[in-house]
Amino acid sequence: MTQALALTRDELQDFLDGDFGPLGGDFIVDRAEADGLTLRMKSSDRFLRPGNTVSGPAMFALADVAVYLAILSRIGMAPLTVTTNCSIDFLRKPVAGRDVLAHTRILKLGRSLAIGDALLFMEGGDAPVARANMTYSIPPDFKRG
Amino acid sequence: MTQALALTRDELQDFLDGDFGPLGGDFIVDRAEADGLTLRMKSSDRFLRPGNTVSGPAMFALADVAVYLAILSRIGMAPLTVTTNCSIDFLRKPVAGRDVLAHTRILKLGRSLAIGDALLFMEGGDAPVARANMTYSIPPDFKRG
Amino acid sequence: MTQALALTRDELQDFLDGDFGPLGGDFIVDRAEADGLTLRMKSSDRFLRPGNTVSGPAMFALADVAVYLAILSRIGMAPLTVTTNCSIDFLRKPVAGRDVLAHTRILKLGRSLAIGDALLFMEGGDAPVARANMTYSIPPDFKRG
Amino acid sequence: MTQALALTRDELQDFLDGDFGPLGGDFIVDRAEADGLTLRMKSSDRFLRPGNTVSGPAMFALADVAVYLAILSRIGMAPLTVTTNCSIDFLRKPVAGRDVLAHTRILKLGRSLAIGDALLFMEGGDAPVARANMTYSIPPDFKRG
Repeated sequence: MTQALALTRDELQDFLDGDFGPLGGDFIVDRAEADGLTLRMKSSDRFLRPGNTVSGPAMFALADVAVYLAILSRIGMAPLTVTTNCSIDFLRKPVAGRDVLAHTRILKLGRSLAIGDALLFMEGGDAPVARANMTYSIPPDFKRG
Repeated sequence: MTQALALTRDELQDFLDGDFGPLGGDFIVDRAEADGLTLRMKSSDRFLRPGNTVSGPAMFALADVAVYLAILSRIGMAPLTVTTNCSIDFLRKPVAGRDVLAHTRILKLGRSLAIGDALLFMEGGDAPVARANMTYSIPPDFKRG
Repeated sequence: MTQALALTRDELQDFLDGDFGPLGGDFIVDRAEADGLTLRMKSSDRFLRPGNTVSGPAMFALADVAVYLAILSRIGMAPLTVTTNCSIDFLRKPVAGRDVLAHTRILKLGRSLAIGDALLFMEGGDAPVARANMTYSIPPDFKRG
Repeated sequence: MTQALALTRDELQDFLDGDFGPLGGDFIVDRAEADGLTLRMKSSDRFLRPGNTVSGPAMFALADVAVYLAILSRIGMAPLTVTTNCSIDFLRKPVAGRDVLAHTRILKLGRSLAIGDALLFMEGGDAPVARANMTYSIPPDFKRG
């Protein structure tokens, strides 16, 4: 038997499409399960930088939103959870014109801190283009779902 | 006597306004000297996220461009220099509606790696809102200015 | 068919027991295969700190040696490879009196940079006590095995 | 007028020499003031690794203890404060046979998180050998001095 999620894939997608803000429309939750979540960033010229590659800030945003959603899927809707640290390695030059996928792992869900990481791939690629480790601060008065 | 820069403040600003791409128009080089560079990110609704605060990706972009320009100011125009790692701490909630300033330090200018960090402040604030450490890979065949 | 290793488990263990220096005697290569390496740090009072827990520097050393050996297992004996960056999260308090195991992944084996990460567990535990990401600089004139 | 410290240089040194554990005897608090602290790691063969250089774990330990003491100097004796993250860059090969000095800055002293960084130099050297950023978790029930 597998651990139930506090928020389903559809509920996370609704959050992205609704209250999340302008960036939400670029992201699709491909998969949300107890062992991890996959977030897709749709290919867009807005995410490119000179050299026809996906920009660092766009990959940072993808990793950040992916791990954030993975945490919400486990603890429930805690939108005041904020990123406190990110360490990101850019491993290979991403190719323009393809979606980027982030596969996440949750490493710790503490009382006040949550830690996870993400491995980013171009759609169809088998070598990661980036790896990010993210830390979040959870509001102390949040009641978990 | 102070070390001469390979690129002046005006040359760096011209690069931002010209070849740098869409993000360039949001940045102003306030200061470029041998001991460090200050880059300003102009206040813009595009950089905000829900909660009326400056987004993480926008602060990442500011830190990344600031340290990148500080390196170019020392070694000359090497646009193929790429970011390989960023470690960023988000220290305090930034206020919307004000410019953000990044003050940089260069810690190492090696043959193939350059390392620097940036401390980010809201204009007029005296406590940092973020701290970022950045590593860049310099193309092996680049001839320094 | 699986990728051959440049150095076997026994060759890595011989390196630890021989030229590696005083720390080598505390480490055992449990497993070295193409998809990853597991390094064991034997329980020792020298690795403890007040509170009867494994010290941060000891966990750092374990992660560092584990990813370093995983890289050597893939490229051959390149002892001049040096650590350039480590980002480590301490996730849970380790228990004294048990071995610590590091499971590694290699994320990039470039011409001059190698990047990997390690997840650390107490023997018999199922939640990670630390996670580390490591970057190494490979000497430019090294001929790979 | 300058901010008073919760713990003086002598009180920090007494803590190192007493309750801190075996590593304490290798460290001397050279300076503890409101704007920062300098910690000295005495030259010792125990900190060396092959190649006659100071080991990574020894530099990690120095940075960790230095920022930890800088935090205690500001909030009082909170020995249960624990390191949650370290990001360290090794910038230059340290020379054996000389003390290493860590100069710290505190970037944030929050309710539950404290963040600081350290720049490490060989005694007499003017280029940093390492840079570390450290995050600590402060026990929620700690009453500050």
